[in-house]
This record gives sequence, C-alpha cells and structure tokens, in this order.
Amino acid sequence: MKLILIGFGVVGQGFAKILLEKGDDLGARHDFSAQIVGVVTASKGQLYHPDGLDIAHLLRTAETGSFADYPESELLQRDWDANDMILRGSADVLLEASPTNLQTAQPALATCHLALDQGLHIVLANKGPVALDYGGLRAKADARGLHMRYEATVMAGTPTMHLAQDALAGCAIRSARGILNGTTNYILTQMESGMTYAEALAQAQALGYAETDPTADVEGWDAAGKVLILANALFGSSLTMRDLDVRGITDISPEDIDQARQSSLRYKLIAEATPVGGMVSPQRLPVSDPLASVGGSTNAITLDTDLLGEITLIGAGAGKLETGYALLSDLMAIQRET
Amino acid sequence: MKLILIGFGVVGQGFAKILLEKGDDLGARHDFSAQIVGVVTASKGQLYHPDGLDIAHLLRTAETGSFADYPESELLQRDWDANDMILRGSADVLLEASPTNLQTAQPALATCHLALDQGLHIVLANKGPVALDYGGLRAKADARGLHMRYEATVMAGTPTMHLAQDALAGCAIRSARGILNGTTNYILTQMESGMTYAEALAQAQALGYAETDPTADVEGWDAAGKVLILANALFGSSLTMRDLDVRGITDISPEDIDQARQSSLRYKLIAEATPVGGMVSPQRLPVSDPLASVGGSTNAITLDTDLLGEITLIGAGAGKLETGYALLSDLMAIQRET
Repeated sequence: MKLILIGFGVVGQGFAKILLEKGDDLGARHDFSAQIVGVVTASKGQLYHPDGLDIAHLLRTAETGSFADYPESELLQRDWDANDMILRGSADVLLEASPTNLQTAQPALATCHLALDQGLHIVLANKGPVALDYGGLRAKADARGLHMRYEATVMAGTPTMHLAQDALAGCAIRSARGILNGTTNYILTQMESGMTYAEALAQAQALGYAETDPTADVEGWDAAGKVLILANALFGSSLTMRDLDVRGITDISPEDIDQARQSSLRYKLIAEATPVGGMVSPQRLPVSDPLASVGGSTNAITLDTDLLGEITLIGAGAGKLETGYALLSDLMAIQRET
Repeated sequence: MKLILIGFGVVGQGFAKILLEKGDDLGARHDFSAQIVGVVTASKGQLYHPDGLDIAHLLRTAETGSFADYPESELLQRDWDANDMILRGSADVLLEASPTNLQTAQPALATCHLALDQGLHIVLANKGPVALDYGGLRAKADARGLHMRYEATVMAGTPTMHLAQDALAGCAIRSARGILNGTTNYILTQMESGMTYAEALAQAQALGYAETDPTADVEGWDAAGKVLILANALFGSSLTMRDLDVRGITDISPEDIDQARQSSLRYKLIAEATPVGGMVSPQRLPVSDPLASVGGSTNAITLDTDLLGEITLIGAGAGKLETGYALLSDLMAIQRET
C-alpha cells in the first residue's frame, strides 16, 4: 500500500513512528505493509519517492523543522505539492492529517476530491472535509468503489467509528452522545477540584491540551465538528454548523460547578447527534451516567441502540500514538475489504 | 446460511425474534439471510426441516413448553438429535446456546467437535466449550478453514470480542479487566444503597438476575469462565480453572462496603486476564476508575493497550435481545469473512 501523507505534525509523526516500530509485526501478524511515498507539509517542505521514503530519516529530519536534511537520492522529488503527487505519482491512499479548518475545510477538501477523482482511497484525521462535505466525498467514493475512512476525527484512535459502523452492524443506532473534546473536559474536571475557569484554562495550555487561542475548544466548535461527522456518518444527515445549537463552557462559574456537586451532579460538555439534529451544550449529569465519571482529557461516547440498549466507549481523545493508530486501523480496514 | 440451533431458551428465542423482526432489513442493508433448519432442546423436543423452520411458529410453540404443536409438513423431522442433524442434515453453522456447564462443557463440547469435523462453522453462547477447550476447538477450526466465534460468552452482545480482536487489530493488549458478572454487580450496587447481602440476593432472584442456586455467580465461577475465555482468546493461554485465583462476594459485609465508601472507594467483583494468568476477586476501586461507576447488572471491560492506553467498553451483560444479537453479529462476521 503506497501512501501520500498530507501534514506531518503530531498525527503524521505518530503514524510514521508506529509504522517504523511495528512494521515487521504488522506484516507477520496481519499481512499488512505500507510505504509512505510522499509527505506534504506547510512548513517543513515536501518529499516524494516512488519506492517509498525512509521513515527513520523522515522522523529525524522532521525534528529539525525541515526536510532539507533528508538524504538525496535518485528519483526523490522535493518540489512536488499534493496535487503533483496525486496526479504524477503512484499511490493507493491519501492520508489527510493537516490542521482542521471548520470554516471552509480547504485546502484539504480539494485535495481529497482530487485524490478520489484519481482513484485513491482517502483516510482523514483532518475533521474539516468530513464535517463540511461528508455527502460529496461519500458519493464520489461510492461511485468509484473507493474507501473513505476517518476514525481519527472522533476520539482519536479509540475505535468509535469502527464500533458504530462495523461492530454494531445490524443494530439501529438511535442517538450518539458523548464527551468529544478533551480540553474542555480537562478544564471542567480541574474546576471540580476548585480551580477557576481561567486557572484551569492556563493549566490546560501549559500542558499542551489547549491551543493558545482556545476558542474552537471552549466555545464548542471542535465538538460541533464531531457532531456533524457523527450525524452524517451514522444517520445520513446533511446538517451544517448553522443547524446545530452550540454552547461552550465559558459561562460556567465555580459556583455552578459547586451547586451541581451539591446535588450529586457533574458538569460535562455533551455533544449529541440524533437522526433529526445535533447540539453541543454543558449538561449536569447524574453520577450514574457513565459519562459523568469520565475525567481529565479522556473522551467517551454513548450509543443508544435498538437491540443492545446503551453502549459506552471510553478512551483517549488525542495523543500522538493514539491518533496515529487511527490512521493505521483505517488502512488495515481498507486492506481487509479490498 | 443454514443454521442448527442447540438450545431454545432466552438466548435462542432472542436470536429467533431478531431474525423474525429484522430479517428483511438485514437482507436489504447487509445482504444477510439465514434459515434455522434445526432446533434441539432438552425439554421442548426437536425439529428439523431442510428448507428452514417457520420462526413465528417456532416462537409460538416454544411458549407452550413443547414443539408438539409445530405444524406437520413433509420432510419435517421430529426425532433427530443434534448428531443426526449434523451428520444427516445440511447446515452451514452450528449455534450452541444450551446451558453452560463449566465442569465438563458437555454435551455441548462433543457437539461442537462433531460440527467442526463435518465442516460446519460454530458460534457459541454456551461458555463451557470456549472456557474449557478453546485450544482444541480453535486448532480444529483453523485446520479446516472454519470459523469459531463466541461474542455472546462475554458481556452478551456488547461487542467485547469484536473490539478486542477486530477493532483493535494492530494494538497489543496487555490486560483485560472488567465487571463480567451482572448478578454480583447488581448485589453490590444494592448493598451500597444499604441492603444486606441476603436482601440484595433475594431481590436479584426476584428480578430474575440470579438463579435459585446462585453459587456460580456469587462465588465467582461464572466470571472465572469468562476469564478463561479472554485468556485463551486474547493471549493464547491454555489456563484451566485450577490456574485461577477465584474469590466471590459472599464474604463482603455491609460494614466493608460502608468503610470503602467512606474512603471514596467502591467494591466491584473484578475479573482479570493477563498474558501470564487470571483471577476473580472483589476489589475496592477509586471512583476515578471507569469501572467504579458501572452500576446494577451492567457489565464493563477495560483493555490496556500499547498504542491507545486504556479503552473501556460498558454495556449489557445479559438479556434476551442483547444476547440473541451476539449470535447474529457473529453470523454476520462469518458471512463477511467467507
């Protein structure tokens, strides 16, 4: 399997590291082998080699912030962009792991369409294209018999989409509701231990959980992007951000948290998708709710099903290896099914 | 897919009910269709028809406690036992859903071996054969290119085995620990609300969660059977009951529960399998442990993995449709993979 990887930040490097360390094992136990033939980044440059790039070198040079030190070799291309690689190169799958843009999904969305047009499967960690144009991408992929997978976009590599779409086949899912943003859950958990919102946010930023501009997390937009993905993937909706009622956690005071605790309730930022819509909003959950005890940056989702009742999956929502694994698991699924 | 069903109690009837109600949908959406050609029971009699039995009739006559009222038709056999059906009939899969025997696994184990010898896939809800002879059955199935699946044996249809074996492919699982017996979890939850052990057990029996003889549940043997299944399936162990340290909940007093609660701890009967062994024992968990807040008859399992850290799955551990669905999901997996 030859791969073009767009983006070589935390997710791309995590994926490359897993391939490097587990490659032999994956070959022996799962008959899986993959080569990264191209990498495209906004800041480090780009590299393409038709016989595959050397992953150890790739990871080492990435640490310097530039691919300039990647060793020269015949057939190595340093100036191909994503379009060149898709049009002129030879690859089976496009991995989109560049930063998410929830306004336009570009430039990733155009790259994904081009890849499908050219017969490549697509695997996304970038939420933008899946949240904003699920229908368009799905229709194109289906029409061409190509795979489109996006396990990384919801709860990192915790197998949320796999659970909902494969493991529960034959069950009807009636709703999906969860804690899908680790940053806000971390902040709320710290506020329960007595911090103010500002203190908790500062700590989340110091630990790298929250961006310098935390708006997308704390105002609920990151979680809302995941609601769109779930609504599209599970219920065939074609919702847009405007259809969602989205509230974040910025208005929650220590007094609110304290009052809730006195009634044995816990504040959680809940994201929910149903067949008729979706929303993101802080909710006070009884401690008997499996979501109530999910603390720190951990994520969780509860699927309400017709045959099994409620199924809850709890796991990592971010992380280098955790998200890198999502790309691997999607590729392994594509290999099994083609 | 032609099926022989051994046992027509809660699980078998749940499975039949799902086939009856969802058959058309499963055909349309998943290209899945199955016929029950044979049913064998200890108390209701047996029925075999090469063109498939009428499921609605089957469910109705089962309510009377006997298949005697099942309508007569040409080619219907009323006196074939399981061996006759396997040897003389024509079926693709044997579904073993008769009551579990954790001492000898018989007569189910012999039936499963005969089915594999005759080229049938096997799907089990009966824990005995998987707990006591996993290695023997697996070797025979693999040698003949046949499937052996047993989702129902751990946490009913909650996709535990699917998660561990398919959805996490490529991850190494380091341990599996969970609340795998609903009866004892229900009793412990009621004791936390102030009941004595005897009161809680009586209530569990009144609600149908606990058997008249609750020994297998309260002394930990049911959970231990599941530990053997997990140890075999996830770690390739060949443990027997004698290798496990098994303690139940009969010694836990209201004072123990109360003392734990004062330290913000909760008693749970924890079943654990690792690459080097397994055990069942009551443990006091901090409320931050995802297993601590699993109340009532709900089950849960935490898998510790190399790439994703801890993944927890919470869901039903029993129930008619919940366990019936496990058989369906195994059959759908067999269909996908053959």
